[in-house]
Amino acid sequence: MDLGKVVVVGVGLIGGSIGRALRARGLASRVVGVGRDEGRLGEAVRLGVLDEGTTDLAAGVARADVVVVCTPVSQVAEYAIRTAALAPADVLITDAGSTKATIVDAIEADARARAAFVAAHPLAGSERSGAAHSDARLFLDRVCVLTPTARTPADRLERARAFWTALGCRLVETDPTSHDQTLALTSHLPHAVAASLAATVPPEALTLAAGAYRDGTRVAGADGALWAAIFHENRGCLLRALDQFDEQMATFRRLLEADDMQPLLAWWDRARAHRARFESDRKGRATHRDGSASGLVEH
Amino acid sequence: MDLGKVVVVGVGLIGGSIGRALRARGLASRVVGVGRDEGRLGEAVRLGVLDEGTTDLAAGVARADVVVVCTPVSQVAEYAIRTAALAPADVLITDAGSTKATIVDAIEADARARAAFVAAHPLAGSERSGAAHSDARLFLDRVCVLTPTARTPADRLERARAFWTALGCRLVETDPTSHDQTLALTSHLPHAVAASLAATVPPEALTLAAGAYRDGTRVAGADGALWAAIFHENRGCLLRALDQFDEQMATFRRLLEADDMQPLLAWWDRARAHRARFESDRKGRATHRDGSASGLVEH
Repeated sequence: MDLGKVVVVGVGLIGGSIGRALRARGLASRVVGVGRDEGRLGEAVRLGVLDEGTTDLAAGVARADVVVVCTPVSQVAEYAIRTAALAPADVLITDAGSTKATIVDAIEADARARAAFVAAHPLAGSERSGAAHSDARLFLDRVCVLTPTARTPADRLERARAFWTALGCRLVETDPTSHDQTLALTSHLPHAVAASLAATVPPEALTLAAGAYRDGTRVAGADGALWAAIFHENRGCLLRALDQFDEQMATFRRLLEADDMQPLLAWWDRARAHRARFESDRKGRATHRDGSASGLVEH
Repeated sequence: MDLGKVVVVGVGLIGGSIGRALRARGLASRVVGVGRDEGRLGEAVRLGVLDEGTTDLAAGVARADVVVVCTPVSQVAEYAIRTAALAPADVLITDAGSTKATIVDAIEADARARAAFVAAHPLAGSERSGAAHSDARLFLDRVCVLTPTARTPADRLERARAFWTALGCRLVETDPTSHDQTLALTSHLPHAVAASLAATVPPEALTLAAGAYRDGTRVAGADGALWAAIFHENRGCLLRALDQFDEQMATFRRLLEADDMQPLLAWWDRARAHRARFESDRKGRATHRDGSASGLVEH
């Protein structure tokens, strides 16, 4: 496969990992990064993340075959629309944003961007940020959610599927709103919870913190600006997810206050069964990949 | 070092790991397990966890030099008191319970048990349970909290320090109530939060769950009966920890509802700084071990 010239707009952890994966797998004739900081772009080239870097979007996307917008979510639509105006007419534009509905709505309001764009969200990342932490294997066997709509061009959708599959992703397709509702529960809520837990435990208690604290707060180490933007874009869904979480915390508290351990144990076992389902799905996935979840089409 | 005959009462993950560590390091002349199930004790012997197993506490602790009570927290005091009545007068009795005040109070009300007992809590474990998951390296470089009181015999305290250090632990000493207050925040709360998160996310959403969900819910996989007993024993402290956590969740919600990202970012960065402190403490510990935390004496 030769994807031709692939441009990554925003060379952080995700953009950098895409660059590394393309180069490691020899998938592109050229990998170009577009960023705001000359020094960091130069460093990314030296690290082998990119073939070249530029701060000039027009120069970067000229003669591009694929452009992947990997900026914070608040800037994805703007860069996709600007890219559509500057790049060749047959360009494929995709993204890696953690929210989808707001981005897709803004892009579909622009005829040229709409004709080139397929929204994507690879479920890969880390609490670390920056191209220095990028990893060619970041996407290997990870889910990439595509959220095409009735207005997404069929040929671009095919090319987007091929692109993300080439990076090692397993594809799942759903609509932008379902994506945001589900991710509010599976990702945005866990981030808010991890930060609340980290905020609750005072530094002087950390001498007696071990594995439960370590794992429960890991993603509180993530970049605040990136996450504030995600929370903002998915505010409605996240507020509903917070309601549902608060209900569970309130149930736990009520059972603890009543000091009746049998119902508490029953509540725990239900939670534990959900967690066990997640583990067994992951194990099952390692041996066969043809399962599909309700409301989602898996490719 | 020869610890002599060491008896583990309750041969689960913790008791089994103590057995394995003692045998791997050649620290004991004999490692005996006391349990309720002949079949499981036989299996533990076959796995190399124990030299022998018995369902008879009196036979098990006869001529014992050290007895470690590794039962669920609700049974620790009872077994320590029964052991003190059956074992030689110079026996050291210690435990591995996740709560301390209730256990210490009950044991100190018994003169013979009080004269032999040093309360301990190694901060090591796993969401898995059972001797089959035990690991000789489980305690390596992990904190073990000792909670002696004014009534703890000095010679037993010295022997308990030597015992837990021999297993690879770093010792921290504090009083039982401080232990329970701190662990409510650093361990019991994170378990309640992980289970609430697991209960909130419906199974059909798990196709789109990744690292934040995985780590945020890991300890929801733990045994419910063990944890219900811990929650019950540390109910007062845990209810206060839940209050503090709820305040942080409410702050997050208020900032999200206001949709003003600057204060939300400031809140996030404070949480992130706590998490960073935990990471840097752990890294610092790898190079030098002479630090001490406020209110705690580290040996």
